[in-house]
Amino acid sequence: MPTTDKIVIICDDEATTEDWRNAIADYAPNMTVEVYPKDTEREKTQFVLVFNPPENVFQKYPNLKVIASMAAGVKHITKKNKVSKNINVTKVNDAMHHDDMANFALTLTLSHLRRLPVYFQQQNQALWKTHPYKRPEETTIGIMGIGTIGKVIGTLMLKNNFKVTGWSRSKKDIDHIKTFHGKDQRNAFLETAEILICILPLTKETEGILNREVFNKLPKGAYLINIGRGKQLVEADLLEAIDKGQLAGAALDVFREEPLPKQHPFWNHKSIMITPHTAGSVTPESAVRKIASNYNAMKNGKKLVDVVDFEKGY
Amino acid sequence: MPTTDKIVIICDDEATTEDWRNAIADYAPNMTVEVYPKDTEREKTQFVLVFNPPENVFQKYPNLKVIASMAAGVKHITKKNKVSKNINVTKVNDAMHHDDMANFALTLTLSHLRRLPVYFQQQNQALWKTHPYKRPEETTIGIMGIGTIGKVIGTLMLKNNFKVTGWSRSKKDIDHIKTFHGKDQRNAFLETAEILICILPLTKETEGILNREVFNKLPKGAYLINIGRGKQLVEADLLEAIDKGQLAGAALDVFREEPLPKQHPFWNHKSIMITPHTAGSVTPESAVRKIASNYNAMKNGKKLVDVVDFEKGY
Repeated sequence: MPTTDKIVIICDDEATTEDWRNAIADYAPNMTVEVYPKDTEREKTQFVLVFNPPENVFQKYPNLKVIASMAAGVKHITKKNKVSKNINVTKVNDAMHHDDMANFALTLTLSHLRRLPVYFQQQNQALWKTHPYKRPEETTIGIMGIGTIGKVIGTLMLKNNFKVTGWSRSKKDIDHIKTFHGKDQRNAFLETAEILICILPLTKETEGILNREVFNKLPKGAYLINIGRGKQLVEADLLEAIDKGQLAGAALDVFREEPLPKQHPFWNHKSIMITPHTAGSVTPESAVRKIASNYNAMKNGKKLVDVVDFEKGY
Repeated sequence: MPTTDKIVIICDDEATTEDWRNAIADYAPNMTVEVYPKDTEREKTQFVLVFNPPENVFQKYPNLKVIASMAAGVKHITKKNKVSKNINVTKVNDAMHHDDMANFALTLTLSHLRRLPVYFQQQNQALWKTHPYKRPEETTIGIMGIGTIGKVIGTLMLKNNFKVTGWSRSKKDIDHIKTFHGKDQRNAFLETAEILICILPLTKETEGILNREVFNKLPKGAYLINIGRGKQLVEADLLEAIDKGQLAGAALDVFREEPLPKQHPFWNHKSIMITPHTAGSVTPESAVRKIASNYNAMKNGKKLVDVVDFEKGY
């Protein structure tokens, strides 16, 4: 059994590793931090903090109890690793991160409403031309995936006078937001969404969910904002929907392949705005508190928070 | 004395004239609307609705009582015309217009905070690179000109978690906004403004107010948003302040010359974002209500609203 408090960082990026090491040293100075592959006495390691771990790495830790993700998602963990059922996997679920996501969703929404992408392109040509705009109170935002983050987004949109609807897997009741749930109510939801904001987790059910069928149910001229996951979007269907005028355009922050390849047709599409996965950055400084608290819960046999439910997939 | 209700439109733009004529016909169907220079019996005209009127035009109307501006400002009226003191000049002061201005100020603020201008430029080069961002609660917005519209802007910024300060000619007390007034408190105000939003009216005192001296008082790396008037900005001083790193950049919606000339150095400056005077459009549909109400007040000898005070200059 381990005699010292130890967290092992398993991460494919050196700078990120350093940031987390510093944040832990700052918040929990008595904690020993080791970094894979230079870590020692692996049979004593119970708690690892990971991002993009190498294939089958967890087999090297026979007494592992907790795998803490450095991110809000866990696909980076499960894509090359099987995780046995007696190990808890936790995700980052951090209020500051949620606020950042909501703030960015609002930024992209207002940018579209007030035509900033058009004006940026006009500036490249020294072109002075004014375009009409819609007001928030005339615009319905549909939030696809109205869970914890979706609700924060919806609340911020309401504060800014937008009308808001939401769709989720299971039923939700939220003041002033018209909610829909399940497959049966999906089309009714889509018909309301003049601006569709996707913030769904990536699961078997949501992969490829942003497709032709869904786009065709939106009001004509709708706008897509994807801050969920890149694999939720069928890219060819988006291009087609914009080409035929069903969608006015899209703001995409996440992609199937990141960085987005240089040759990708999205880069120079005039109706697609690209940001480099910047909606919400989990900062070690803000996330470390819950990581440390989960470490203590593990030591004391208490219940952990933000544990991933692999049946739901998030 | 006139026997019919009549408004004469004096405007240099045909499409704008038509929009106002339709809005009046819709709102006040009994009103006779004539358009200069084809209007009749000018000695009977008491009320004109104007935008960019020709030089000395009001001398043709011996019994004129009210000049109603089609815009929030009145410089377009006074630049080529003297207005005698017994004539009331009114401006448009319309809540929907104020909300639009505030919404656009928020749009430009968030766009800067979340680095959209940088990402737009990166998209032109198919460049994937993430940049850090500041949060609203870490950012102080300084509103230069915290009058009617400035207060609406400040309130919206507070709702979105920004810290807000304001400066005006005369003292203002507004909940949760730290206000400053007069020349003596100007520097203390400027020192707070990480994002300076100028929404001042154009007067002798405010012409050229956005100059080197003011920029040097802002926190280093501050950002300028000008949705006031183009003549408030000393353009060379802005370029210098950005060059030397005192300002991070600017979003400009108003210019000394509009449209901004093709050869102007602002167009391809990478830290200046240009929009074509689109912050708030006065729509005849929303403004006509108060125009008609002022017409009736004139007829009945009552007090008009939104009358310009030429001593203050707005």
